[in-house]
Amino acid sequence: MSIQTLQAELAQKEPREILKSIYSQVDNIAISFSGAEDVVLIDMACKLGLKPTVFTLDTGRLHPETYRFMQTVMDHYQLQIAVLAPEQESLNKLTQEKGLFSFYKDGHKECCGIRKVAPLRRYLGGLSAWITGQRRDQSKATRDSLDVVELDGAFSGKDGELIKFNPLCHWSSEQVWNYIRALEVPFNPLHSQGFISIGCEPCTRPTLPHQDPREGRWWWEEADNKECGLHSSSIISK
Amino acid sequence: MSIQTLQAELAQKEPREILKSIYSQVDNIAISFSGAEDVVLIDMACKLGLKPTVFTLDTGRLHPETYRFMQTVMDHYQLQIAVLAPEQESLNKLTQEKGLFSFYKDGHKECCGIRKVAPLRRYLGGLSAWITGQRRDQSKATRDSLDVVELDGAFSGKDGELIKFNPLCHWSSEQVWNYIRALEVPFNPLHSQGFISIGCEPCTRPTLPHQDPREGRWWWEEADNKECGLHSSSIISK
Amino acid sequence: MSIQTLQAELAQKEPREILKSIYSQVDNIAISFSGAEDVVLIDMACKLGLKPTVFTLDTGRLHPETYRFMQTVMDHYQLQIAVLAPEQESLNKLTQEKGLFSFYKDGHKECCGIRKVAPLRRYLGGLSAWITGQRRDQSKATRDSLDVVELDGAFSGKDGELIKFNPLCHWSSEQVWNYIRALEVPFNPLHSQGFISIGCEPCTRPTLPHQDPREGRWWWEEADNKECGLHSSSIISK
Amino acid sequence: MSIQTLQAELAQKEPREILKSIYSQVDNIAISFSGAEDVVLIDMACKLGLKPTVFTLDTGRLHPETYRFMQTVMDHYQLQIAVLAPEQESLNKLTQEKGLFSFYKDGHKECCGIRKVAPLRRYLGGLSAWITGQRRDQSKATRDSLDVVELDGAFSGKDGELIKFNPLCHWSSEQVWNYIRALEVPFNPLHSQGFISIGCEPCTRPTLPHQDPREGRWWWEEADNKECGLHSSSIISK
Repeated sequence: MSIQTLQAELAQKEPREILKSIYSQVDNIAISFSGAEDVVLIDMACKLGLKPTVFTLDTGRLHPETYRFMQTVMDHYQLQIAVLAPEQESLNKLTQEKGLFSFYKDGHKECCGIRKVAPLRRYLGGLSAWITGQRRDQSKATRDSLDVVELDGAFSGKDGELIKFNPLCHWSSEQVWNYIRALEVPFNPLHSQGFISIGCEPCTRPTLPHQDPREGRWWWEEADNKECGLHSSSIISK
Repeated sequence: MSIQTLQAELAQKEPREILKSIYSQVDNIAISFSGAEDVVLIDMACKLGLKPTVFTLDTGRLHPETYRFMQTVMDHYQLQIAVLAPEQESLNKLTQEKGLFSFYKDGHKECCGIRKVAPLRRYLGGLSAWITGQRRDQSKATRDSLDVVELDGAFSGKDGELIKFNPLCHWSSEQVWNYIRALEVPFNPLHSQGFISIGCEPCTRPTLPHQDPREGRWWWEEADNKECGLHSSSIISK
Repeated sequence: MSIQTLQAELAQKEPREILKSIYSQVDNIAISFSGAEDVVLIDMACKLGLKPTVFTLDTGRLHPETYRFMQTVMDHYQLQIAVLAPEQESLNKLTQEKGLFSFYKDGHKECCGIRKVAPLRRYLGGLSAWITGQRRDQSKATRDSLDVVELDGAFSGKDGELIKFNPLCHWSSEQVWNYIRALEVPFNPLHSQGFISIGCEPCTRPTLPHQDPREGRWWWEEADNKECGLHSSSIISK
Repeated sequence: MSIQTLQAELAQKEPREILKSIYSQVDNIAISFSGAEDVVLIDMACKLGLKPTVFTLDTGRLHPETYRFMQTVMDHYQLQIAVLAPEQESLNKLTQEKGLFSFYKDGHKECCGIRKVAPLRRYLGGLSAWITGQRRDQSKATRDSLDVVELDGAFSGKDGELIKFNPLCHWSSEQVWNYIRALEVPFNPLHSQGFISIGCEPCTRPTLPHQDPREGRWWWEEADNKECGLHSSSIISK
């Protein structure tokens, strides 16, 4: 089963069809949940009876609302979500040297590296593939040529290669929100306080009407840099 | 000067051109300011040196943020805004009979009638024309066939007929917001808390991403009813 | 029935006894409700079956939470509260000349005069006596020698003289709050956001632990000035 | 140097005197900072030129305001604070089994054990003594017989025995707040939103006026249980 074959098979499909197809072909797979509108992937997978394994990255700096929303999702779908904490020593070292808000001064890569990328790398090392909520429309600068299936260029899986699926790749933000409201999917209450894209509390802010949602993330940095490292080298040899 | 002539002249013009033309032809005119994104009209008029007369309706139930924003606008543009209060006896009678939230039970018309429509009627009675921030894109249900120039079907002016100008009629919400951000126009801070359309505090709520902004107003009522009476019969004999 | 006789009779009594005694001797009387912890007077009067007339001053600038709390009180006690609005012309004139926040610049007396004192004067003109939630412990500077019964030195009643009763005069803030919590009296939700004394939104702020609650009111003015005019000359010839 | 001798020497002293005396006699000592009003210890120590070592426990669930306040303290006093993170595996195991809010169901001990007690135990293992902001007046139930000097009954130090100093032991909440306001010590902004005692976000809430501050912590549990384990067995053989 090659990436090309999978991509050919799934590229034109609807998210639910993609999920069904993935679960019929791949084992050792998990859905990555960010605590935001990618909850639709969980909704689809659960309603399809796929009993998905779901994980989320608890950076230790999420909004209180996001922690509560994560528990709401666990309760609503009767689902245990693996909540991945950062490594103690790395955190202690970072804060001892640079305090609690170094990212405003020297960029978010170091902090994301410890709080998100390292725990993710460790967890993905036990998988064959993972499923994300990434969409092309989330960022002209970094996600414009995203595909439904990719060979993960940044992380390795259980047996070396790791496949990354992005079933919502071609959906627009509007489609996602129509789904959420029509199907009464639980959503992060921050979404009704002006937040569109949601990440860590100090690195997320609400955006104005018609402002690019990516301006609500790491707003002190350049637009072409706005990935946390989870998907940084995702667009590689397919 | 007929409505038809004015409409023919102004229909294809840009808002700034419309404003300039209005002020060169009409006296006894004022801009209606709602405390929301129609601040762009004030910005344009002031920058064009038109020294506009501006009024706003203080219902007594606006958000604290809106009162502060109104003052910000006065200070920023060195402008006195006429802040129109409701009539005492009518208010006392309404609250004595129905308490402070009757609109949730028997509709917003009665409360809007006292807090907005009556003070507006009184004020418009001294004018020949008024200028509003209404746009077609604000509501499919009630504003879809709005024109730049209208004969006001609901209110009378100083000499009988009252003309209503809607210079932003053809602008989209996106154009308004591009203007606000590009020109650093002051805006109501509620707009960065998820509010798009802003009215009275108990009758306004934030909307979700991609939700119709009109769902943030009088959400317990039907969509085709969502005008407060200021513009209720505006689409009449032209 | 003289003030002296009443004072002698009531000075040592508990609030409930005072209320009972007042209602057995005086007609044309109403309880003044501020939307804060003086709700205990309403609770006591209602539970004693006194069917009190209650009024409140709606300045048009109260916190949204306070308006909601007032309705909660009406619903909870099945009580219509007279909500007294300010006079339209005076408001329009004030804001036309000075904008919406003149009190920060030239003191709160003018605004309180229009939004509170004038409507109060008008209403009290129909009464023989009124009942307030004033307490000695609310302000060393202005309320330290308050009595249970006073001849109102600032306002006149239906037949000239107006009596003012302060049944909570000798209670401490702690007693009031023990009453509220023990009897599950509804309270203004601002009290669980750091607010102790509550008035108009722009003129009220939360206080720190152990800070004088009066520092939460008109904090830009001197301490001996912190009355809104309702009780300004209350300590006169008894 | 025995506990008895130290206690005899320090029991009647003022906090500043106690701090001076401690730093003249003991090495390998650090101040524990909770992110709340115990900031006065840091203020005193810094102003005395003691160049204190300070640590805090970052449970990963603090209020955003508390993280910002911690950084404010670091910046204000030009001080690196050791921010101690919890151990990764223990956290992952807890959340995998019980989700993110288990403490509401089966008590806060398990979560505090992982997020506070274990990192504290590890850190204290490198010290000879520590300094806390505990006061008798914080809890009738658990802190009423606190002393200025104690042999820590719960934790061990570098060479076995660990001394615990509580220089604010005899101060009242009011003294602490008078100090903070008089000397313009930076404080956690939550203190101006109704919070008195501040801990983790899901386990802290504002209290009402005159409500016992301890009712703002673990309010679903019994009053005699309201310690997180940091000071649980502190009152032992002296």
